[in-house]
Amino acid sequence: MASLSGRHHPKDGTSNAMKKIEINKDLKGENQEYAAANRELFLKHGMKVVNIMSSPGSGKTALLEKTAAHFQDKLKLAVLVGDISTNRDAERIKLAAGGVQSEQIVTEKYGSACHLDARMISEALPRIDFAQTDILVIENVGNLVCPAGLYLGEDKRVVLLSVPEGDDKVKKYPVMFREAELLLITKMDLICACDFDPKKVEAEAREIKGEIEVLRLSAKTGEGLAEWYQWIDRLESRATSYE
Amino acid sequence: MASLSGRHHPKDGTSNAMKKIEINKDLKGENQEYAAANRELFLKHGMKVVNIMSSPGSGKTALLEKTAAHFQDKLKLAVLVGDISTNRDAERIKLAAGGVQSEQIVTEKYGSACHLDARMISEALPRIDFAQTDILVIENVGNLVCPAGLYLGEDKRVVLLSVPEGDDKVKKYPVMFREAELLLITKMDLICACDFDPKKVEAEAREIKGEIEVLRLSAKTGEGLAEWYQWIDRLESRATSYE
Repeated sequence: MASLSGRHHPKDGTSNAMKKIEINKDLKGENQEYAAANRELFLKHGMKVVNIMSSPGSGKTALLEKTAAHFQDKLKLAVLVGDISTNRDAERIKLAAGGVQSEQIVTEKYGSACHLDARMISEALPRIDFAQTDILVIENVGNLVCPAGLYLGEDKRVVLLSVPEGDDKVKKYPVMFREAELLLITKMDLICACDFDPKKVEAEAREIKGEIEVLRLSAKTGEGLAEWYQWIDRLESRATSYE
Repeated sequence: MASLSGRHHPKDGTSNAMKKIEINKDLKGENQEYAAANRELFLKHGMKVVNIMSSPGSGKTALLEKTAAHFQDKLKLAVLVGDISTNRDAERIKLAAGGVQSEQIVTEKYGSACHLDARMISEALPRIDFAQTDILVIENVGNLVCPAGLYLGEDKRVVLLSVPEGDDKVKKYPVMFREAELLLITKMDLICACDFDPKKVEAEAREIKGEIEVLRLSAKTGEGLAEWYQWIDRLESRATSYE
């Protein structure tokens, strides 16, 4: 068992790892089925759907509070919020905009999953009144890695990166940025206190995905929110599904 | 296929999900084997090992830059840094303290894994000179969910939560805080610009784990660093392995 260096190597894990890859392929196939069914429903009911992803604490909920309040009398917005534990964020959004549909998906009941999948969305959809929904915003679990690439049936993907997280994150977490159509640089109000170069972030994001749109904003000062609201207003259904 | 509500339900995924649980159990067993072998090596060579976890951008690397520089002539410190992509963080730590052993684990070669596992550590250990190591610090991949509970062979687990992430994170990501012996509240220099109550965070962390230690610090201003260095200095080997 001991190698030449005296360092131990437990039995090789290849076969279980291979099995895991197979199962993951099956699960991905199942996810695509649920996502396709979600998408069919969204199209049938004329809803546009955005999937919002980021690290914990990048400001997804703060942005959705402002967004729900802004669109209150202009657009029928509904929100599904994913968290491992607590209902707090869905409640926050309801408080910010009375009457907005805001429902929580707690992944504790799905083994504390680190991301939302299409089945969780499918199981939460009966809580949404489609007739009262033009745009459905899905706030994913705070995680800059795992939610990337898991198709939920959405039209667009948005990734948030907040100024205090640092301007090196695009190159360190490339998968998420490759998946997104829009990058929101959030908490711009903290730019003076942090060593963060938004131009570098934009350039690195475009290296990974040439056509990505980038907006800089602050839910606190209101910077950039008008452009974000326009982006939501202009939202179009996707012609093709995500892979 | 269509249910009463006209909402589609793809075929039930239970069997694949069950298979996944089985495989995960096997993989967890494999991980424990690697972790036990790592631990045996650590004990044999009298090394103490810390596993540091947090969201992306909570300040793990900044803290380790300071820590490596501080201990430069006092203690033999080695660092293993996990990232999905780029070698930048290991290089940053080397730059901060010439001569410190600082090695990168890039998880791109492990399917862009969202966390470190004991096998990755095992495969990286040949790059560390054990004779030159009193304390090995493992900086995990930035992710407040997935690294929790995956035993690497370490003595202690530390979780960072930075002020701009918000004071609601303990209840939203309870698993990570349940696993940690020490909670570091970082970026205290930003406390004036953020709506963050450290007392609330401490209280909620102690609700989840009664005996957790909590320190408040800022790598920028130096607040709390002396206590952190003392914590490192006092580090003891764990009597028992993690499950």
